Amino acid sequence: MSTPYDSMWEKLNLDLNAHAGLLQVLGKFYGDIYLSQSGRLRGMEYLDFVLSEVHGLRIKELQDAKAHGKKVIGTFCVFVPEEIVLAADAVQVGLCAGAEAGKDAAEKVLPRNTCALIKSFVGFKLSRLCPFIESCDLVVGETTCDGKKKAYEIFADYAPVHVMEIPQMKNACDRELWRAEVLRFKDTVEEATGNTITTAKLSEAIRLVNEKRRVLQRLNRLRAASPVPISGRDVLLVNQISFYDDPVRFTANIGKLCDEIEGRVRAGAGITPKETPRLMLSGCPMAVPNWKLPYIVESSGAVIVGEESCIGTRNIRDLVDESGKSMNEMIDALVDRYMRIDCACFTPNTERLEHIVEMAGDLKVSGVIHYGLSFCQPYAMEAYKVEKALKSADIPMLAIETDYGMEDVEQLKTRVEAFVEMIR
Amino acid sequence: MSTPYDSMWEKLNLDLNAHAGLLQVLGKFYGDIYLSQSGRLRGMEYLDFVLSEVHGLRIKELQDAKAHGKKVIGTFCVFVPEEIVLAADAVQVGLCAGAEAGKDAAEKVLPRNTCALIKSFVGFKLSRLCPFIESCDLVVGETTCDGKKKAYEIFADYAPVHVMEIPQMKNACDRELWRAEVLRFKDTVEEATGNTITTAKLSEAIRLVNEKRRVLQRLNRLRAASPVPISGRDVLLVNQISFYDDPVRFTANIGKLCDEIEGRVRAGAGITPKETPRLMLSGCPMAVPNWKLPYIVESSGAVIVGEESCIGTRNIRDLVDESGKSMNEMIDALVDRYMRIDCACFTPNTERLEHIVEMAGDLKVSGVIHYGLSFCQPYAMEAYKVEKALKSADIPMLAIETDYGMEDVEQLKTRVEAFVEMIR
Repeated sequence: MSTPYDSMWEKLNLDLNAHAGLLQVLGKFYGDIYLSQSGRLRGMEYLDFVLSEVHGLRIKELQDAKAHGKKVIGTFCVFVPEEIVLAADAVQVGLCAGAEAGKDAAEKVLPRNTCALIKSFVGFKLSRLCPFIESCDLVVGETTCDGKKKAYEIFADYAPVHVMEIPQMKNACDRELWRAEVLRFKDTVEEATGNTITTAKLSEAIRLVNEKRRVLQRLNRLRAASPVPISGRDVLLVNQISFYDDPVRFTANIGKLCDEIEGRVRAGAGITPKETPRLMLSGCPMAVPNWKLPYIVESSGAVIVGEESCIGTRNIRDLVDESGKSMNEMIDALVDRYMRIDCACFTPNTERLEHIVEMAGDLKVSGVIHYGLSFCQPYAMEAYKVEKALKSADIPMLAIETDYGMEDVEQLKTRVEAFVEMIR
Repeated sequence: MSTPYDSMWEKLNLDLNAHAGLLQVLGKFYGDIYLSQSGRLRGMEYLDFVLSEVHGLRIKELQDAKAHGKKVIGTFCVFVPEEIVLAADAVQVGLCAGAEAGKDAAEKVLPRNTCALIKSFVGFKLSRLCPFIESCDLVVGETTCDGKKKAYEIFADYAPVHVMEIPQMKNACDRELWRAEVLRFKDTVEEATGNTITTAKLSEAIRLVNEKRRVLQRLNRLRAASPVPISGRDVLLVNQISFYDDPVRFTANIGKLCDEIEGRVRAGAGITPKETPRLMLSGCPMAVPNWKLPYIVESSGAVIVGEESCIGTRNIRDLVDESGKSMNEMIDALVDRYMRIDCACFTPNTERLEHIVEMAGDLKVSGVIHYGLSFCQPYAMEAYKVEKALKSADIPMLAIETDYGMEDVEQLKTRVEAFVEMIR
């Protein structure tokens, strides 16, 4: 079937047949998981539209921006300061990948026991399936885990890569290292774009990204209501789209969605009955279109009210101080904000444990599902500590480890149903 | 069977029955793999003795040292500067563990898909099987891989742990971070021992550790001879013992061993016939008593002439500059030396590729066996790059991934034999 975007995809050197197959699967999957929901908010129509045009209109926008001299910078991690990219008049898009379409290609250059997210982005590149990756003038990696750190070395054979070093502790020398890395990133972005980052531009970018975070914080706060006004699947989608949509347009639309939700909360209306068990997800990020576990949970009689994850609260919890006037003050504000991220790459990472327990309390959850991507060591090992912390707070936890395959769906459903039954 | 060390082991709170079982297996294993070799060097008797007393006399020495007020500091990694420990009049012992005796206990607190080395040291502690760990006043971890980094957080529930942060790149900010970490370690060691590290003590310690490295360098150079004068198994044992033996005594004895080897080389004598295929091992460390792969290789018609590994050349390649006079100069010399380590924790780590190709040339090997511990992501991912680098140099490589279990011995033997046949 031909589409208005065929020639664009061809120019981007996608594997057109395989790509058409991917979109077809994605459409079917989305229909089953998203459009089948009843009582959805009207404001989700914007997200449905954006998702339906994920490889179409949004890529067209990127190409148009490029035609006007803008650069596109791809990222995989919440540590990459979008403020720097926007201040250089570039576009930032998240490249974390949540489908296993390129798995076979990825396994030719990566060990099979590599996490699904890494295999996915490498596979998308090698199989020419992702128009976002193909649109990028620069791809930014980081050292948050062994798998990604070493995979970027291989990925760099196929795309221009800049790797940011993320510290592993939070002492003074770590802040210094991170500050140097933020400045090195600024230099790289300025060079890639040919634009100088001015204090005015950076100040505006800080404000803009904060606005995006604020609207997502507002959305998350609204989920404390009972009954829950929005499904976990829908909020996950909002979070996923926040990584690649135009930030100003996105913020405006999520603002409207929140207005609608507020109305629903005032009316005491919800997406599920008041007595539905409230669960929180915690752990690894779920990148588009990885909706497997949320779908399983929400079709097992529970509702998800929070995501303690990079594609979730980890990305939006902290704002950048907006009071900085000089370049140095603003860089310091960025450095401090990003150093507060409670990623499992830090040792120890006790803040994360505190955040999880606090969040579970705020959202009044009856249980937590810890989500680990198979072979993700940092989160697998922290799961042990998370379970202990939750136990002290009398909150039950179920640890799930899975990948993007569909072979274990029934098995997971059985485990999740048993957990929901137990906490009901 | 009672031994003269029973009461010592009891005082150390070992699980005496399980420990006796471990020693029995170790003795049998050592007999089969080591004592069965023909044409061994007389100087290996010292190593045989040290190994036979690994949990006996050496532990007694540590207890005696402790009775005289000395502290024992345990380490897992070649990044921990032994010079600092010795300069504080403490004893450093390597705790890397190469047996799966405590595996079941370890898997209660760690994910099953954690590398065997990590499960081993955690398991040894939880099962009370290791008198070295029980003798330690301080255990030093580091952030070289996700698995160890996160496992130390759990290990710290059971032992006093200090974790050193290892940088992941080699830029100026990384050197600064590492310098801060070396100084923080110095403070910790001074506090733990109650001794102040003076310039005289540090200078002497630098010289002493360099001497140990020099004698091991000499040993490795002698293996370039054809026929090979010493088996790979024996050199691996020498390297393993270098981590826990008294450094002065060890250096003297390996010096004598080298004198004997020189005689053998002069006489044109070898441990195997001249035409025996020469192989090099590269990759993950092999901790005592992990002799599985070397034994398989050397009973498959090949001989090992080099170990590109932490328990091998990675630990001894570089010396510390001895010209420093002030504390600052000496710390700088230490910082610079340890920053040269070509660990897979760095990105990129091209030095390692260069070292491997150079070493393969120097030792005139016909092939390289890349050894990865299952679930060790950094070395598994670098194997891809190593293979490419060796291919450019026309050196065939076989990638092996295994753990400490014996289930795959026959399968590994088949693969190794086929590789040896191919390169013959």
